[in-house]
Amino acid sequence: MSKNKKMVEAITSMDVDFAQWYTDIVKKAELIDYASVKGCMIVRPYGYAIWENIQKDLDRRFKETGHENVYMPMFIPESLLQKEKEHVEGFAPEVAWVTHFGEEKLTEKLCVRPTSETLFCEHYSKIVQSYNDLPKLYNQWCSVVRCEKTTRPFLRTTEFLWQEGHTVHATAEEAQEETIRMLNVYAAHCEEILSIPVVKGQKTEKEKFAGAKATYTIESLMHDGKALQTGTSHNFGENFAKAFNIQYTDNKGKLQYVHETSWGMTTRLIGAVIMVHGDDNGLVLPPRVAPIQVVIVPVAMHKEGVLEKANSVKERLSKFARVKLDASDKMPGWKFAEYEMKGVPLRLEIGPKDIENNQCVLARRDSMEKITISLDDLETVIPQLLEAIQKDMLDRARENRDKNTRVAVTLDEFMDKIENQAGFIKAMWCGDRECEDKIKEAAGATSRCIPFEQEHLSDTCVCCGKPARHMVYWGRAY
Amino acid sequence: MSKNKKMVEAITSMDVDFAQWYTDIVKKAELIDYASVKGCMIVRPYGYAIWENIQKDLDRRFKETGHENVYMPMFIPESLLQKEKEHVEGFAPEVAWVTHFGEEKLTEKLCVRPTSETLFCEHYSKIVQSYNDLPKLYNQWCSVVRCEKTTRPFLRTTEFLWQEGHTVHATAEEAQEETIRMLNVYAAHCEEILSIPVVKGQKTEKEKFAGAKATYTIESLMHDGKALQTGTSHNFGENFAKAFNIQYTDNKGKLQYVHETSWGMTTRLIGAVIMVHGDDNGLVLPPRVAPIQVVIVPVAMHKEGVLEKANSVKERLSKFARVKLDASDKMPGWKFAEYEMKGVPLRLEIGPKDIENNQCVLARRDSMEKITISLDDLETVIPQLLEAIQKDMLDRARENRDKNTRVAVTLDEFMDKIENQAGFIKAMWCGDRECEDKIKEAAGATSRCIPFEQEHLSDTCVCCGKPARHMVYWGRAY
Repeated sequence: MSKNKKMVEAITSMDVDFAQWYTDIVKKAELIDYASVKGCMIVRPYGYAIWENIQKDLDRRFKETGHENVYMPMFIPESLLQKEKEHVEGFAPEVAWVTHFGEEKLTEKLCVRPTSETLFCEHYSKIVQSYNDLPKLYNQWCSVVRCEKTTRPFLRTTEFLWQEGHTVHATAEEAQEETIRMLNVYAAHCEEILSIPVVKGQKTEKEKFAGAKATYTIESLMHDGKALQTGTSHNFGENFAKAFNIQYTDNKGKLQYVHETSWGMTTRLIGAVIMVHGDDNGLVLPPRVAPIQVVIVPVAMHKEGVLEKANSVKERLSKFARVKLDASDKMPGWKFAEYEMKGVPLRLEIGPKDIENNQCVLARRDSMEKITISLDDLETVIPQLLEAIQKDMLDRARENRDKNTRVAVTLDEFMDKIENQAGFIKAMWCGDRECEDKIKEAAGATSRCIPFEQEHLSDTCVCCGKPARHMVYWGRAY
Repeated sequence: MSKNKKMVEAITSMDVDFAQWYTDIVKKAELIDYASVKGCMIVRPYGYAIWENIQKDLDRRFKETGHENVYMPMFIPESLLQKEKEHVEGFAPEVAWVTHFGEEKLTEKLCVRPTSETLFCEHYSKIVQSYNDLPKLYNQWCSVVRCEKTTRPFLRTTEFLWQEGHTVHATAEEAQEETIRMLNVYAAHCEEILSIPVVKGQKTEKEKFAGAKATYTIESLMHDGKALQTGTSHNFGENFAKAFNIQYTDNKGKLQYVHETSWGMTTRLIGAVIMVHGDDNGLVLPPRVAPIQVVIVPVAMHKEGVLEKANSVKERLSKFARVKLDASDKMPGWKFAEYEMKGVPLRLEIGPKDIENNQCVLARRDSMEKITISLDDLETVIPQLLEAIQKDMLDRARENRDKNTRVAVTLDEFMDKIENQAGFIKAMWCGDRECEDKIKEAAGATSRCIPFEQEHLSDTCVCCGKPARHMVYWGRAY
């Protein structure tokens, strides 16, 4: 047994200490490791393979909606960052400054991009002249840096991987359509690929992005009842166009400012997958994003014919699924625990008795159900099961989200519910910043969004009693 | 004609001014734009699409040879960079230093990675314990920063995109095998995808990578007779393992140092494609790396039925090729020039007369040949033509390289040939650094590599007349 060094130790239960449970999973499922650079993380092969699956799906959706990838420099000169006033105020306190190249002091310091609006704007101001040049629909895959005092892997790190879309349009209507189109792309990705249900809506003035006219968001609920913003899409109107003088000649020969959007999703999605689907045995991955969809664990592996049969099963499965055969010396029980920790959706067990009966055992990671099937049915049953897991995980997450979404009509009710049961609170709001601040102070909850699907819960603001203007989702958030 | 703003102006002829010809192509083919950050470039959609095709092929080859992708932080603390002495001496003068996060001064400054050996080593020292953990075969796609005084798009920029492979192995033999395996992967990529012939060999002590035991390289010859190093693969032996204490327990329970390799390829490959295949009409792209393989240009587009037919041809071609139909208002002649500038391998022209005769015209970008084919033969002729272009481009480049590779037996002959005809010089070398320095001083040429395929040209060193130890490729280089 000396070779079984990598035995999987039990992790902290999520009910005992949710934060520790989360940290245990990211480490034990080998998603990340810590680096010697404070606040940064190493994304290990298994974590990066999840990110590659997310990238592949999003990139396909971006290209299908007409977007093109580009690459902008990672450095932004100080003077360029300062061109849009609200934007620089939002980011300056947390940017990393490069002051020297080798021994040589720079005449103008450069920040490492916290986001690239300013670089895209400068470029657009050079390449956009006429209405024929519009729209420009660009996206970039890269990492960005925003200094964070307290960090959590995937959720909040000083450097993180993301994509940032930046588009310019001839009219306000087109920019607004694009902003909503990309929010819908994000929502579809979350629901179809990650099995994560989302609430779509608009951020309040207080919560919107630095420099934006309007910010739209998708919000999801984690196992511990906290909210997570999983993606945002911003309409900048003409704010940046005016600061960077991005003008075009319209079809009547008149100079006009472009209308701009930006939208981003990050490796934080992996954190969402952990906290929406994980359990006390570790990670649970939806099949469409899982690096390994089926793991084959041979039982009594050294008996004659077992490994051969396992290999032929692998061969067959690899035609339609991402499959791994673990033929290492570890005991089957250790392997079961290891792939449960790693959240592999399906485990296929096959031993001498199974082979005798022309069958194998399939164990679902999400429900822990086990079934025995004929080896003749691999090609029909397994794809169906993977689809069923994908769908059941979404249904279960939606059920959990709905169960933990509560209505509050008074502030007392609001505080009572968020204190005792966590989750989303739906409550009416007058629209005043003052009430938003007061709710934050009293209940520690922020407005998550003004959802597109409005409901009339009462006539008055949950906080001040003045006439209500919106129904808002509130929550404590990551 | 007012809409034809993007008319394609003629570019500088490569015989008149090669450097200007190169710059004209990267700008006019819309591969890059300059950013306000000195020495950095914006990779525009068309340039980035070429990079994506390069990435896709290399990434497939890496995965097929068992490698996994990871992501390391972009920052390296000063103390970590300094752990391997030769390495830090090689890079410290050109790294970008981050000294502040917002207003706050860092207690230890961080450099933006010029390469990530140190980060990988630190990680390996934590995760490698036993021989069961070996080998670790990791790769990373990212950008790196090395301050450059004089920059050229793709060839030498302060920030550039690349991949860096970093592997650790139990034995010296395995590390050496890996080093050569990846050099061969690089060579296959260059020849099969980019149609660029390469010379494979080892770098001299003088030219090897900072901290490596041995550096292997693939070298290619550009149109102007200068050499370009297109990829390198390094064997570090135990150098880094000792500096970072990366040890494992072997199968006899004894502690051993790992053996390490690294290998990288960059966006400079795009520069190589330009300078190996381009001509005075612009870029010429091999089909396998071309973002658009066939462009359809309708002639007399507004005549009845032309656009419909062009669209149905596009539909058919898109089943097996990357195809674009340009139905914009520009005149066909403008379109011809534009896609020639962009190096699109095949142009398909179709007008009313063609439709009447159930035919179309195909124009090859590489040879400028035109043929007329029946519309019934699209599915057979076009794939064959694309393959023929791919192969002919490699053959032509190899012929050109061979024609410009000359033998020199004396230093006078060496200087005469490199001065008057440029190209590679093959000459014998005694192995002494002194001769290498002298050749550099006298002829401005560096040793490109000691090729794996050795020839015996004479008994003595081209420089000092002492007994020769190697045949070496020399050249003036980018």
